Amino acid sequence: MERVPILKIGDILLVSIQIDMSDQTAVALQEDLAERIVATGSHGVIIDITALDIVDSFVGRMLSTIASISKVLDAETVVVGMRPAVAITLVELGLSLHGIRTALNVERGMELIAASRADDDRGFDDDPEDVESGTAATSP
Amino acid sequence: MERVPILKIGDILLVSIQIDMSDQTAVALQEDLAERIVATGSHGVIIDITALDIVDSFVGRMLSTIASISKVLDAETVVVGMRPAVAITLVELGLSLHGIRTALNVERGMELIAASRADDDRGFDDDPEDVESGTAATSP
Repeated sequence: MERVPILKIGDILLVSIQIDMSDQTAVALQEDLAERIVATGSHGVIIDITALDIVDSFVGRMLSTIASISKVLDAETVVVGMRPAVAITLVELGLSLHGIRTALNVERGMELIAASRADDDRGFDDDPEDVESGTAATSP
Repeated sequence: MERVPILKIGDILLVSIQIDMSDQTAVALQEDLAERIVATGSHGVIIDITALDIVDSFVGRMLSTIASISKVLDAETVVVGMRPAVAITLVELGLSLHGIRTALNVERGMELIAASRADDDRGFDDDPEDVESGTAATSP
């Protein structure tokens, strides 16, 4: 069985889907990704679909499942490299990539994940409940 | 005809080979890469072969050709993700990946390219001919 390779780049895992996904390869990819996220502590997953001519409901569901699994493991999923024709077909078929963020290319996807992480971090620092308990006032 | 996607990450182009390369796809990849190197001004090409079970003389030659083309266009090629079994077979078959640098994974490949670029830059600054002309002695 073919496996889709998962590349680690900094804080991010990169998957480039080029082969036709079968049930088996899709499940294997989900398992591999979940294991790699835990093993590496990555906070982002970028899935490149430049090579895909068609994104049908099966692939769409696989992408959604990957995004959901990643989210549980505290990693954000961004799908990049979607061809214009694929986007048009998705809309025409009424398929929505539920819970999936998209970006034009890998670099924009990385920026999106970095920005999202930065927002999260700021969220922690400025947590209003901290201020309420008075800890903010005691710090120098 | 299938095309192998080329991903741009910062200063580097990343190619993940997952499909069986035919003559046509190999030539298309070489052309696409050459065009992308020129268009983006990238200084490094990383070719990931994690997904390949076999590197035969055809693939070996393709990698060497890509490395040669990239070199002419001032980009360095690093092959990453070679499986242990592939390395053993390469040596047993007496195939040498001529002119190709290898690294364990994408991140190490990026480091290799960055280090190599830094060396090149330093090479310009510390040009021994400068020293001969006495400029080095006048610096503080």
